[in-house]
Amino acid sequence: MEAKDNGPKKKLSNGAIEGPTNPMVTPLLTDLYQFTMAYAYWKAGKHQERAVFDLYFRKNPFGGEYTVFAGLEECIRFIANFKLTEEEINFVRESLSSSCEDGFFDYLRGVDCSDVEVYAIPEGTVVFPKVPLMRVEGPIAVVQLLETPFVNLINYASLVSTNAARHRNVAGKSKTLLEFGLRRAQGPDGGVGASKYCYIGGFDATSNVAAGKLFGIPLRGTHSHAFVSSYMSLDEITDKSLCRKDGLSTCDDFVSLVQTWLNKIQLSKGVFGATNQSELAAFISYALAFPDGFLALVDTYDVMRSGIPNFCAVALALCDLGYKAGGIRLDSGDLAYLSSEARKFFCSIEKEFGVPGFGKLTITASNDLNEETLDALNKQGHEVDAFGIGTYLVTCYAQAALGVVFKLVEINNQPRIKLSEDVSKVSIPCKKRSYRLYGKEGYPLLDIMTGENEPSPKVGERILCRHPFQESKRAYVVPQHVEELLRCYWPGSSDKKTDTLPPLRDIRERCIKQLELMRPDHMRRLNPTPYKVSVSAKLYDFIHFLWLNEAPVGELQ
Amino acid sequence: MEAKDNGPKKKLSNGAIEGPTNPMVTPLLTDLYQFTMAYAYWKAGKHQERAVFDLYFRKNPFGGEYTVFAGLEECIRFIANFKLTEEEINFVRESLSSSCEDGFFDYLRGVDCSDVEVYAIPEGTVVFPKVPLMRVEGPIAVVQLLETPFVNLINYASLVSTNAARHRNVAGKSKTLLEFGLRRAQGPDGGVGASKYCYIGGFDATSNVAAGKLFGIPLRGTHSHAFVSSYMSLDEITDKSLCRKDGLSTCDDFVSLVQTWLNKIQLSKGVFGATNQSELAAFISYALAFPDGFLALVDTYDVMRSGIPNFCAVALALCDLGYKAGGIRLDSGDLAYLSSEARKFFCSIEKEFGVPGFGKLTITASNDLNEETLDALNKQGHEVDAFGIGTYLVTCYAQAALGVVFKLVEINNQPRIKLSEDVSKVSIPCKKRSYRLYGKEGYPLLDIMTGENEPSPKVGERILCRHPFQESKRAYVVPQHVEELLRCYWPGSSDKKTDTLPPLRDIRERCIKQLELMRPDHMRRLNPTPYKVSVSAKLYDFIHFLWLNEAPVGELQ
Repeated sequence: MEAKDNGPKKKLSNGAIEGPTNPMVTPLLTDLYQFTMAYAYWKAGKHQERAVFDLYFRKNPFGGEYTVFAGLEECIRFIANFKLTEEEINFVRESLSSSCEDGFFDYLRGVDCSDVEVYAIPEGTVVFPKVPLMRVEGPIAVVQLLETPFVNLINYASLVSTNAARHRNVAGKSKTLLEFGLRRAQGPDGGVGASKYCYIGGFDATSNVAAGKLFGIPLRGTHSHAFVSSYMSLDEITDKSLCRKDGLSTCDDFVSLVQTWLNKIQLSKGVFGATNQSELAAFISYALAFPDGFLALVDTYDVMRSGIPNFCAVALALCDLGYKAGGIRLDSGDLAYLSSEARKFFCSIEKEFGVPGFGKLTITASNDLNEETLDALNKQGHEVDAFGIGTYLVTCYAQAALGVVFKLVEINNQPRIKLSEDVSKVSIPCKKRSYRLYGKEGYPLLDIMTGENEPSPKVGERILCRHPFQESKRAYVVPQHVEELLRCYWPGSSDKKTDTLPPLRDIRERCIKQLELMRPDHMRRLNPTPYKVSVSAKLYDFIHFLWLNEAPVGELQ
Repeated sequence: MEAKDNGPKKKLSNGAIEGPTNPMVTPLLTDLYQFTMAYAYWKAGKHQERAVFDLYFRKNPFGGEYTVFAGLEECIRFIANFKLTEEEINFVRESLSSSCEDGFFDYLRGVDCSDVEVYAIPEGTVVFPKVPLMRVEGPIAVVQLLETPFVNLINYASLVSTNAARHRNVAGKSKTLLEFGLRRAQGPDGGVGASKYCYIGGFDATSNVAAGKLFGIPLRGTHSHAFVSSYMSLDEITDKSLCRKDGLSTCDDFVSLVQTWLNKIQLSKGVFGATNQSELAAFISYALAFPDGFLALVDTYDVMRSGIPNFCAVALALCDLGYKAGGIRLDSGDLAYLSSEARKFFCSIEKEFGVPGFGKLTITASNDLNEETLDALNKQGHEVDAFGIGTYLVTCYAQAALGVVFKLVEINNQPRIKLSEDVSKVSIPCKKRSYRLYGKEGYPLLDIMTGENEPSPKVGERILCRHPFQESKRAYVVPQHVEELLRCYWPGSSDKKTDTLPPLRDIRERCIKQLELMRPDHMRRLNPTPYKVSVSAKLYDFIHFLWLNEAPVGELQ
């Protein structure tokens, strides 16, 4: 590791931390009470006490039994750059009581994350409730300040990655999935985040140019209905020439060539009535701009009577000049029916006019798609190759938040437990380790948490795995493979080796592999089998010992 | 207006446009197809054609009959700063086909919004489906580039403002509403945006420090459960002294003073069993840090057996020293019951120990609140003064997106209509004006859209208002007051006077007044009456004339 410079910024062996992706992510992006608590800790001389917090969630989203963990890199960037400016400190001073002592602001001036340790599950891993996604250890006042930004950065990232993975699961591996959600996302970086994390969850591309630039995500896009309706007639096309793809000659009147094809198609199909001429003009104009891979939105007027014949005429004319068309996009109507009809039309053109590959042109569908509509399309049968998904994907319409929490589990080496009448809200105390145990078939069997200093589970050795709260739920497991889940990503002042922060593509790759590794019954959309999360016998006993001690005195009488 | 400098940035008479609030909001924050279309327009020599787009939504959110319009200032900032950097242009070049001509990128280099006109309804206005919130006119290639960012900036802003207004509507005027959603928001500026727009919608304060700094929104916060459980015992409090508020003397052992009070309370209430000592230590410590306005989270262990007696002991001790406590926060359990019990406890203490005002201490409630739970609390009866609302508010859990669209309504002075089999998706063509007509009682009666050059409705003159699509729905109205809705916020190259962009507080004020102005049956939660949106007789006829002309030829046969 390199020596620190005058700032708190660290360059880790795992790659440069170049500042936050989003410049709004500053130490002030937190709840006021984190600062009031920091002051109270400082005033009590308690601010340097070593605390351990677990970041985890309590329930898988979308009625499923798995979650994709994402957002880690943003958290590490955040702490790498964690330093309050003088202006920010002044604002905190104004926001707290005027009785707060100056010494506190001197203290804040020196605060950074050089003494904070962050362990986390690698980004892109499939994760489960209660198992810490991150374990953050450091001076309590500092670690508290990280709570809100960490939860914010993990919550939506993991939720939308999971949503993307679920859409992929329904769509199947062979389909192309395009994220089209920027306009409906919850704010600008809601849109940018959606593009990034949907890519991690298995999407292939985005329409969001900013996300393409920031993260190198492949970009996709054609044209809109407005483009089509901005044309009135073919007269608007003044430069009608198009050079052949091989550059050997130029077609002087591409418009006539298209019209010739349109007539042939109409004759062959026995189609009566003209197609929409504004639409035809728009398609020709778009083809003149992008002759290779020509794509058209075909539902502005009437898909089968206008859009498809117009598209085919342009595509065939392009073919004459050596170009290969891309395909169509459907943005309304009965997508199962229209995609099947369009496919038939393409295939009949391939056959009739002897144009190899024409039947395989790409059909993209969009228009308020979600898991349910994809599932329904599958059941009806369709010919869609690519889905453009927006609103439901990026806003996580089916469940707009993941309940990520950040709980104190140890302070000054003393375990802490948060009790609640609702057992699902009781926290699992202690600084812990967690492991994923794999069975003979190669599937993960369960996750187990142990105390920090317990021996780790061993391959081939029987281990008792207990439900953290229900006494009767327990099982012996003989793992064939043991994977420790938490890895060091920010070593604090220790000299621990840190794990690399991989590039986005690798995170995506990991995520896809992780999802494939799961036993299929955990992953199905309806009535999936819960994946088991357990604790060691020792940790179980300790939880329940603490529980008794912490319960309200009245209840013990 | 000032002369332009070398950038496109304009200072309007309506206040300085100092750059985007969010530095991620750049011209690349758009869909790729806006650039492919821009190229196609440019290639066809059509890019400078004058186009008019309407930005509107089709349906009110949350099952209601009204929407709060918000996000306008961000849009105006965006266009004021709209200029592609060389780096951005290079990225667009890489993202488009390699066949795209250089001339286009030279063109992009010169693009700004100096020739774009933006008319809009003032931010904070109550608005309705189909009526343009913004009318954007300019060179078609440029205006298309604005579509995605404008829709993004308006969509969530209006949605969450409306959600806030609805929460206020249920909670009632007298309650304090606190936005606590940062950690559950969809990304960092999802959180910052939520704070801003919930404030516009009628919230009183936020926990989000960054939003407090950016927008001057009042900040609120106390402490968390972790703060309470970070304490083990009273021994941790080493400096036990607290100066009286008047500064005249110092209490050397505040801990003993609190314990004395706790004993008195327990005796008087006949409470057996000790309260939780970690909690007591945490409260004392917090009170020593913030003796004035002391607030405590009382549900870490047991509200009635521990939290409330501990709080009261500390509050009474503070009172002895001349300080006034603030109150409590409840974050779990039966809030109706617990708030009522807490209120009784406070009142009995006021009476028994003669502490004026103790019965009126503030009770704040949080914990997954939303419109329904607020409504249920009202029905049960409760003693909560302030609500802290997070997840459901900021993610708009009940409906995570508003369907804002941006439709071409005119190009080169030719009206354009977008047809659809679904009538609700048919756009209303033409560059239009819109008016709100008020009746005798002072309530808005309906909104009416007219062609740009029609005479405006006049006070006292009968006007025929027609449903845009249903022939039988029509009514004569004699307005007592006529308000033109669209105002100029960005004059483009014209010399039109622009409206001021008011400060956030004024927008909030406008919103609150607008909501109060509405007839109550439009605003109720269950089965609200739809507010009527109409068109003039002339515009009605024109829509239907166009519709016939644009419909697919096959259907006309």
